[in-house]
Amino acid sequence: MSIFEQRESNLRGYCRIYPTVFTTAYNARQTDENGREYIDFFAGAGVLNFGHNNKKMTQAVIEYIQNNGVLHSLDMSTSAKRLFMEKFVEVVLSPRNMSHKMQFVGPTGTNAVEAAMKLARRVTQRQTIVAFHHAFHGMTLGSLAATANSYFRGAAGVPLNHVIHQPFGCESPCLGCQLGCGKAQLDRLRAQYHDSSSGLEKPAAFMVEVVQAEGGVNVADKEWLLALQQLAKELGALLIIDDIQAGMGRTGTFFSFDEYGIDPDIVCLAKGLGGLGTPLAMNLVKPEWDDHWSPGEHTGTFRGQNLSFVAGTEALRYFEDPGFLQDVQRKGARMIKHLTQLANDPKIQVRGKGMMIGIDLADGEQAKQVVAHCFNLGLLLGACGTGGRVIKLIPPLTIEDSDLDTGMAIVIEAIEKTKEGAK
Amino acid sequence: MSIFEQRESNLRGYCRIYPTVFTTAYNARQTDENGREYIDFFAGAGVLNFGHNNKKMTQAVIEYIQNNGVLHSLDMSTSAKRLFMEKFVEVVLSPRNMSHKMQFVGPTGTNAVEAAMKLARRVTQRQTIVAFHHAFHGMTLGSLAATANSYFRGAAGVPLNHVIHQPFGCESPCLGCQLGCGKAQLDRLRAQYHDSSSGLEKPAAFMVEVVQAEGGVNVADKEWLLALQQLAKELGALLIIDDIQAGMGRTGTFFSFDEYGIDPDIVCLAKGLGGLGTPLAMNLVKPEWDDHWSPGEHTGTFRGQNLSFVAGTEALRYFEDPGFLQDVQRKGARMIKHLTQLANDPKIQVRGKGMMIGIDLADGEQAKQVVAHCFNLGLLLGACGTGGRVIKLIPPLTIEDSDLDTGMAIVIEAIEKTKEGAK
Amino acid sequence: MSIFEQRESNLRGYCRIYPTVFTTAYNARQTDENGREYIDFFAGAGVLNFGHNNKKMTQAVIEYIQNNGVLHSLDMSTSAKRLFMEKFVEVVLSPRNMSHKMQFVGPTGTNAVEAAMKLARRVTQRQTIVAFHHAFHGMTLGSLAATANSYFRGAAGVPLNHVIHQPFGCESPCLGCQLGCGKAQLDRLRAQYHDSSSGLEKPAAFMVEVVQAEGGVNVADKEWLLALQQLAKELGALLIIDDIQAGMGRTGTFFSFDEYGIDPDIVCLAKGLGGLGTPLAMNLVKPEWDDHWSPGEHTGTFRGQNLSFVAGTEALRYFEDPGFLQDVQRKGARMIKHLTQLANDPKIQVRGKGMMIGIDLADGEQAKQVVAHCFNLGLLLGACGTGGRVIKLIPPLTIEDSDLDTGMAIVIEAIEKTKEGAK
Amino acid sequence: MSIFEQRESNLRGYCRIYPTVFTTAYNARQTDENGREYIDFFAGAGVLNFGHNNKKMTQAVIEYIQNNGVLHSLDMSTSAKRLFMEKFVEVVLSPRNMSHKMQFVGPTGTNAVEAAMKLARRVTQRQTIVAFHHAFHGMTLGSLAATANSYFRGAAGVPLNHVIHQPFGCESPCLGCQLGCGKAQLDRLRAQYHDSSSGLEKPAAFMVEVVQAEGGVNVADKEWLLALQQLAKELGALLIIDDIQAGMGRTGTFFSFDEYGIDPDIVCLAKGLGGLGTPLAMNLVKPEWDDHWSPGEHTGTFRGQNLSFVAGTEALRYFEDPGFLQDVQRKGARMIKHLTQLANDPKIQVRGKGMMIGIDLADGEQAKQVVAHCFNLGLLLGACGTGGRVIKLIPPLTIEDSDLDTGMAIVIEAIEKTKEGAK
Repeated sequence: MSIFEQRESNLRGYCRIYPTVFTTAYNARQTDENGREYIDFFAGAGVLNFGHNNKKMTQAVIEYIQNNGVLHSLDMSTSAKRLFMEKFVEVVLSPRNMSHKMQFVGPTGTNAVEAAMKLARRVTQRQTIVAFHHAFHGMTLGSLAATANSYFRGAAGVPLNHVIHQPFGCESPCLGCQLGCGKAQLDRLRAQYHDSSSGLEKPAAFMVEVVQAEGGVNVADKEWLLALQQLAKELGALLIIDDIQAGMGRTGTFFSFDEYGIDPDIVCLAKGLGGLGTPLAMNLVKPEWDDHWSPGEHTGTFRGQNLSFVAGTEALRYFEDPGFLQDVQRKGARMIKHLTQLANDPKIQVRGKGMMIGIDLADGEQAKQVVAHCFNLGLLLGACGTGGRVIKLIPPLTIEDSDLDTGMAIVIEAIEKTKEGAK
Repeated sequence: MSIFEQRESNLRGYCRIYPTVFTTAYNARQTDENGREYIDFFAGAGVLNFGHNNKKMTQAVIEYIQNNGVLHSLDMSTSAKRLFMEKFVEVVLSPRNMSHKMQFVGPTGTNAVEAAMKLARRVTQRQTIVAFHHAFHGMTLGSLAATANSYFRGAAGVPLNHVIHQPFGCESPCLGCQLGCGKAQLDRLRAQYHDSSSGLEKPAAFMVEVVQAEGGVNVADKEWLLALQQLAKELGALLIIDDIQAGMGRTGTFFSFDEYGIDPDIVCLAKGLGGLGTPLAMNLVKPEWDDHWSPGEHTGTFRGQNLSFVAGTEALRYFEDPGFLQDVQRKGARMIKHLTQLANDPKIQVRGKGMMIGIDLADGEQAKQVVAHCFNLGLLLGACGTGGRVIKLIPPLTIEDSDLDTGMAIVIEAIEKTKEGAK
Repeated sequence: MSIFEQRESNLRGYCRIYPTVFTTAYNARQTDENGREYIDFFAGAGVLNFGHNNKKMTQAVIEYIQNNGVLHSLDMSTSAKRLFMEKFVEVVLSPRNMSHKMQFVGPTGTNAVEAAMKLARRVTQRQTIVAFHHAFHGMTLGSLAATANSYFRGAAGVPLNHVIHQPFGCESPCLGCQLGCGKAQLDRLRAQYHDSSSGLEKPAAFMVEVVQAEGGVNVADKEWLLALQQLAKELGALLIIDDIQAGMGRTGTFFSFDEYGIDPDIVCLAKGLGGLGTPLAMNLVKPEWDDHWSPGEHTGTFRGQNLSFVAGTEALRYFEDPGFLQDVQRKGARMIKHLTQLANDPKIQVRGKGMMIGIDLADGEQAKQVVAHCFNLGLLLGACGTGGRVIKLIPPLTIEDSDLDTGMAIVIEAIEKTKEGAK
Repeated sequence: MSIFEQRESNLRGYCRIYPTVFTTAYNARQTDENGREYIDFFAGAGVLNFGHNNKKMTQAVIEYIQNNGVLHSLDMSTSAKRLFMEKFVEVVLSPRNMSHKMQFVGPTGTNAVEAAMKLARRVTQRQTIVAFHHAFHGMTLGSLAATANSYFRGAAGVPLNHVIHQPFGCESPCLGCQLGCGKAQLDRLRAQYHDSSSGLEKPAAFMVEVVQAEGGVNVADKEWLLALQQLAKELGALLIIDDIQAGMGRTGTFFSFDEYGIDPDIVCLAKGLGGLGTPLAMNLVKPEWDDHWSPGEHTGTFRGQNLSFVAGTEALRYFEDPGFLQDVQRKGARMIKHLTQLANDPKIQVRGKGMMIGIDLADGEQAKQVVAHCFNLGLLLGACGTGGRVIKLIPPLTIEDSDLDTGMAIVIEAIEKTKEGAK
């Protein structure tokens, strides 16, 4: 029995799906201790947008360490943090005329979400956050209340209050979905909020992922998102965009919402932000709301990770070249093109944005088999959506075309094999 | 106006207390961009037990990166993780006959605490966690309910339910304390739990820090802690030790509770665990409780950080040499000896364990001045306890004696200066 | 200043709307201390279905008192209670083949609702109750969570959890309503409950008024109610009918749901149940759920009021004669016929069932004026619905036709006067 | 099988303890359908302070009904209500210089308690109510959170939040009690509230029974109660006295707290207030707090019961004669004197105030047998306290001495018989 079986908690998950021991990795390839290579379409659950051991980043990080750069600093000021902040303003905020403040929180997405929820409640003096069906926002008690998946919710052990879930506004309806998505539902919701006898209390915030990643790669409709923003404004509620998985270039734009014409009050970032896979999380907060924080009211030991600042600064440089995002879009289109082979199967739906593509098999058991087949064929990927019915493809944005094509071929082979087996 | 003032959230805290920009650091010294050096008695809020840029760790980490070791892997198996786990079993668990499973959670202390609370509730099918006055367990909604400080609690924006706070059992009473600490209170609590008309519901767990760090460096009495463990057993409740700040050698033993004769159901670790200041958090869970987890029920993108495994393995090696902890004890005694100079002042109380020493000034304003004086004199430290009235000394365990002495001299000078100013 | 102004709480309400002091009352007439008579279209908020001081009841009650009948008995057995129970079984339960148990609770509607909510949660081991927009179920913390009106909810002072509000299924849409009522919403809700990633937890019960009284005299659509019952069954949730105001003959049938073909798990009754206006409340509970109660788990000092049993038994005798309910239906139709005079005004909507008729003016200020005009013209009635925009007509079922006609003429005059004033 | 067994809910309780069917009752005697008479030391759970069918009250009530007096009026003004209010001011409030407003709520004790809790939360903008071990305040969700008994709490089905329970300050310690009662605990609690890192949130109110009736006939210590009032004032919290069972003369004074020198912010009354056993509940509220109510924010269909006003006015007349309360005290002393026969048994403790006497047997099973023996011997009484270990004697205040003596003899016989059986 391995040490993992002997001593690691029963909670462990991915080591069961990928039953091997990994040693090294580079860009979109991961190698196990037997020397077997895998193409990585999972990218650390969306963290490794710039590939494993991105050379620019590892060099910068090694140099930083060799110079005894401050590694751990909470929210003290460091020169590495200054460079990161300046680069973020230059590359991201200024071009968008975003006056948002940068708030560094404990270096996990859930911490960013918790901080955003706290601030929205503080600002509005209200308690309810509106989240959406299929939303994923984290595992700690505040964010878990906003996470929709009953498997995770069932672990809370106490009631998950002060969040309600509403239908998400997909740009195209998912296979067989009857949840009531779309603008019509927002109009009903508006009427309910304006009726003082509806029983609903006005919300502190609407919190939404523009592309629901864990929820099944559901892409928000532009008109719906604009209507949601309008409703939030009407009600005096904040609009929080959780861009933790879909941000940092994943969808072919820096923010997932860049082409939506919205102006969120708070944006939550994490995952890809630290560049190399070391933790970092940050909220962007409009100054008028940020002023509601008092110093140190929400803390976290590991906020302000300097290795992540150093690697993250390198990550931001990618966006200085407009060609980078164009290439992401090109690769995304390439992935979609591969998947046209599946177009004849009415039980399969392909959806996504940029390089976040979902293949909805409407069957969690089949999706599980596809993942297993892929692993055996040398491809790492994961399933998402209700019951794990959607295959999620999120390779590093920096993947080589050849690896992308090989990986796509494996996906399609695995799906076909699974479908045959199911007959 | 600096980028920090322009763009960093109003929430920022330590950069106000230490108004400079740090660049490099080594062991117990931190240097700012003006080349000014500071002795560090703060150690990243208890993270940097082995000093800044510990040479063994930086070498191991650089080598790991240069070899393209997998950096980010969630809970996949990696060779770096295996080494860490094996070393942890060898150095920590086996010598203590601890059969606990190792559960890696999102790499922040709060995440570990949230997971522990979930599991205790799952196992017992109860909801209430008993925490203690002055407790600090984190900032996310679940752990925040257990954190006692009203400043942090006030940011929640929703009620913090399902946790009650009881008097902590200090080994010696704090200056002027009337909270009702001690074993007598446990006896009352026992009677209340055994009376079916007390209105109290039996708890899922008692969660306690053996040395309350943020709470004011309050050291638990041994008899009290044993009685607490006994009460937990009687009630079918779990005993959770939050050793996030006091563990990893800080108190002169590996676990803070090593000399207490207790056998906790869950131990939460983070801070020093990753060695170098990169994030890592882990719960140790008795196998019979760990079995209540289903795979993946509590996740976290950044769980299983390999740089932290690599540096953390180096950290564990320190404990292979019994001389290391003896040295920690020696240095702790040396600190206490310095502080005997303050013994004549009845308004000052010194307390602590190992190299976590608190100087209780019973006055938050004075403590604030002491911190400012120290910064001006070249020493970094922080205040803790109710109203920030306690100066907390937590230098790296690896600090040079000369730095330790210099730092202690500065502390005493700053206190004297402050006391004079207060006359 | 009167004693009421001097010493009665600022909370007092109806004495402001009807600024006089009442002394006597008989059937549908109430007289004040100046000898002025008022026709009563309010009937004690739906309590006095059989008129004030119903002769049969007062005689029975006086005789009972004169014989020193037990007045107060909690849930001891008394002969008066036996007679009431036997009569209820004979007249109500047996003809409908209802095997429900009779549960006597504290003698207020809210107590009945709280008991029903407790039992549904006990039976299902779930927490969420689904109530509906515009619902009114009471003022204590449990029932208040189900009451939709924000004015009442705002007095709670703590969060009202574990209840969600959904659109009600009106048989015809209310003036300008955009809340999303109807069967389509139930289908969406079904899909949400069946999707394990919707974020919704399966409910313990659906609790509904077949005619929402305080909510604005909204009559449930039959198909909707059947679909709701079907959904409850599918989900393993209970169907609770709150028939507190609409039951006891008010709608032209004994239960409001008699013609709907449904089979509720729990029916809450109060208001008219005690006949004479003395308090009584009772839940009807299917035996299979009732078994989940342990003796005395939900108590109440004033449960089992014997005067209410005595008068209530007389009330039940009314239903032995099928002519009684036919007469209620006839009078209801007569009221509607009067109101056809208002049919030309597109800003007025008349709706209702039996002798519970609402006139929706879509304007709370106008409705308030109508109530004031009516009072001045010698008619007592009240407003309901969102913002008090609906005039509610609920005269005693036993009202004389002449009083009914006079009252209706006053209503119409008051509305016309108000509408003129509003021009 | 009787109709009760066939059709009454399994929840029924007292009919199991007193397995007969009662028909008539007069003063302290109750007769069953077999003509068997019982002396009543239970008095409707403390409702029938003036005996069953008190002649003055029945006459007044019959006359009122014969005159077609308004029976049901919500909070409209009626002449019966005016007389009641005037008499209450004259007999109760004015002599005590109490400026409190009279707030009529739904006619159950729980409704009064819920209203008091709402108002305290409104006034203070805080959420937590401090209640006490062994407290009983009602069965609806708000008051149930304050009720201590786990049997009742277990029926809630949802968490009971926003109330904490503290040790009650008995004037003498109960048999074997180790809950930590008394002033020392209040001092600890004060320190906890004044420590901003205790984790406790300042309370909206302290709610206390001066004599805990259901809780086991525990009499508050005067010094403790004054200290509690002082603590409430210090913290800006309200002091709510729940005098529902102990008020209206039961303890030998009108209010149970008359001799305690306290000045409560809110007093809850019900039970004996309506005189004859018909429901009535009322809160007395200091005007400065009462102003925080808006009209109609807390309603209840059966508030303002006129039969209860009529009989209650007669009840108030008893207190015009100082001899009445002297007689209550005399009878209370007489009961105690009877019980000196039990003084030699160290396993029995007698305690109480006025005519509310508890005999603590420290054994619920024995107490149950005593109750059964008494019933067989022709005496009705009940058990209270944790596990039902205390025999509670609360005969009508108007009981004849001969019945009192006979009843006491039966109690003692039953206890002796039980003790013998237990050997």
